[in-house]
Amino acid sequence: MTVAAATIEPFRPEAPAIHVEQGLLQLPLLELHHGGSLADVTIAWRLAGAPRAPVIAALGGISANRLVFDSDVPERGWWRELVGPGLPLDTTRFRVLGLDWLGGSGETTGPRPGQTDFPRIDARDQAAVLLAVGDALGIGRLHACAGASYGGMVGLALAERAPARVGHVLAISAAHRSNPLATGWRAVQRAIVRHALELGDGPGGLRIARALAMTTYRTRAEFNARFPAGALADGGRAEFPVERYLFARGDEFAARHRPEAFLCLSESIDLHAVDPRRIRTPVTLAAVVEDQLVTADDVRELAARLPAPCRLLELHSRYGHDAFLKERTALAPAFAAALGTAPT
Amino acid sequence: MTVAAATIEPFRPEAPAIHVEQGLLQLPLLELHHGGSLADVTIAWRLAGAPRAPVIAALGGISANRLVFDSDVPERGWWRELVGPGLPLDTTRFRVLGLDWLGGSGETTGPRPGQTDFPRIDARDQAAVLLAVGDALGIGRLHACAGASYGGMVGLALAERAPARVGHVLAISAAHRSNPLATGWRAVQRAIVRHALELGDGPGGLRIARALAMTTYRTRAEFNARFPAGALADGGRAEFPVERYLFARGDEFAARHRPEAFLCLSESIDLHAVDPRRIRTPVTLAAVVEDQLVTADDVRELAARLPAPCRLLELHSRYGHDAFLKERTALAPAFAAALGTAPT
Repeated sequence: MTVAAATIEPFRPEAPAIHVEQGLLQLPLLELHHGGSLADVTIAWRLAGAPRAPVIAALGGISANRLVFDSDVPERGWWRELVGPGLPLDTTRFRVLGLDWLGGSGETTGPRPGQTDFPRIDARDQAAVLLAVGDALGIGRLHACAGASYGGMVGLALAERAPARVGHVLAISAAHRSNPLATGWRAVQRAIVRHALELGDGPGGLRIARALAMTTYRTRAEFNARFPAGALADGGRAEFPVERYLFARGDEFAARHRPEAFLCLSESIDLHAVDPRRIRTPVTLAAVVEDQLVTADDVRELAARLPAPCRLLELHSRYGHDAFLKERTALAPAFAAALGTAPT
Repeated sequence: MTVAAATIEPFRPEAPAIHVEQGLLQLPLLELHHGGSLADVTIAWRLAGAPRAPVIAALGGISANRLVFDSDVPERGWWRELVGPGLPLDTTRFRVLGLDWLGGSGETTGPRPGQTDFPRIDARDQAAVLLAVGDALGIGRLHACAGASYGGMVGLALAERAPARVGHVLAISAAHRSNPLATGWRAVQRAIVRHALELGDGPGGLRIARALAMTTYRTRAEFNARFPAGALADGGRAEFPVERYLFARGDEFAARHRPEAFLCLSESIDLHAVDPRRIRTPVTLAAVVEDQLVTADDVRELAARLPAPCRLLELHSRYGHDAFLKERTALAPAFAAALGTAPT
């Protein structure tokens, strides 16, 4: 196992002491939880924050990547609302480890264009990848793993698999398994993409699947407030304000992600199943009452089954499942609890 | 305007006195609410029940048709749980008028295979069709119009357009307009079907769209109770119990409906907009608290805006939007109120 192509950016005296390292880790073989293995795996990682500070893995949804925050171009970091200098995950006090997902659309190994037989990937496999990166970078133990949505599932899988390697798990809008309605919505998204791939237009299908996903990430209350009823005035077919929004988001997503990778990671969410009784690591859970995808009941059930004491924070957000990207103030106490810091 | 091909079935002495007439009505021209017109329109209708009894129009969702109930083969009638001898809409006391929808997949005029430029159809146009059938059959005034889902919208449009022609409107899981989240879900369904039509497999798209629709017709509670988590054991790709159910329903639907007709009627739901202030007909509304598609809030808002007194019945059902097909006992009082009968 080697760390290739690592770069270290120069220290910039005018800014807080944020060091950025990133690289590609090569693994000759990765055994997979659901059977089989992958050879010659590449893992794209990024480690950024205060030099020599404790390391926090920061993991998001299936469309997230290793660029958790970016001090130079803040709008590029997917968790910019929560992670950065002076934010709940304060990068002047911690180093933040990010990954491109195995099976995803980034620089980590994933399905090739046209490849629909990529092996099943479990959140446990992502945890194994995280451990391999830790090994390569000399990170014996993460101070914490802060994950939301799929990233929260990976954090739980990490705690189940390697309790000695992580001090605390913060899981936001994530549970020990997926619920049937959410699985149904994702199964429909995958069917859209598979059908489109079969007919020769995977990106066209991915666009529609993402539009559907957006209806499950947000809430009825937000849509009621944002979108007027009635069709937009146009000459052709009827188009509705909510429809224009959903498909604009779908277009953005389809331009950045591969259909085959979406199939792999979407399926991985539904394959996710950890046994809460096997988790002994301290856990902080955050549940969003309005989340349609990972319900507060799902998270409460996880909390009730964890043998060790855990903190369960319930919050309200019009952003539903996307609250982890938006609700800085409401989520700050969860980060403080997980990181052992004073609330910001 | 002529009534062609009407048939009258013989009286069967061993059964309750149910007479069935059905036929095809030809309209030379139908002006449409959203502009344009259709020439040479055929309307398939069915009138069944006690001879010479008051007539109740019975209208369902966009997949319903003129076969509301069938005394000979009960399982064929789409509203068999509520309509029939001795049921809340008692066909020994009333005659039941059913229609195939304009723009649908039945014998009424709809888009031809491959035709995606069929004009926009409004619930008001369905009401106009209902009035034309009434004219042809000598039904000057409906005793009531009992509609659910899209059929409820048509009943409201009928009351707005022709108050002298209907004595009471029962609208179950229907409101004066669609809400943005429901419109978003349907816009995604239409995008799936349009994309599939463009790529040459409309039925394959219709199957997926119906699977998605089923997630919105039913409830999280029902899915939690019916479907275990975890993938089905199989050799190929992961398949989940809820997924198998949704796509079995999708297959059934795609075998019976045309993609182009689905596009037309789905859009018609989102174009629906009546002005409650213009409705002076007595109205009974039934709202299902668990309905994800037409929410109880939507129906309450309609009730609050109706100038005349209306009855609002709120009920709970694990079947959500599909409660109108299932909840005989809970809906009986709504039928009794609308029809002026004692509750059954």
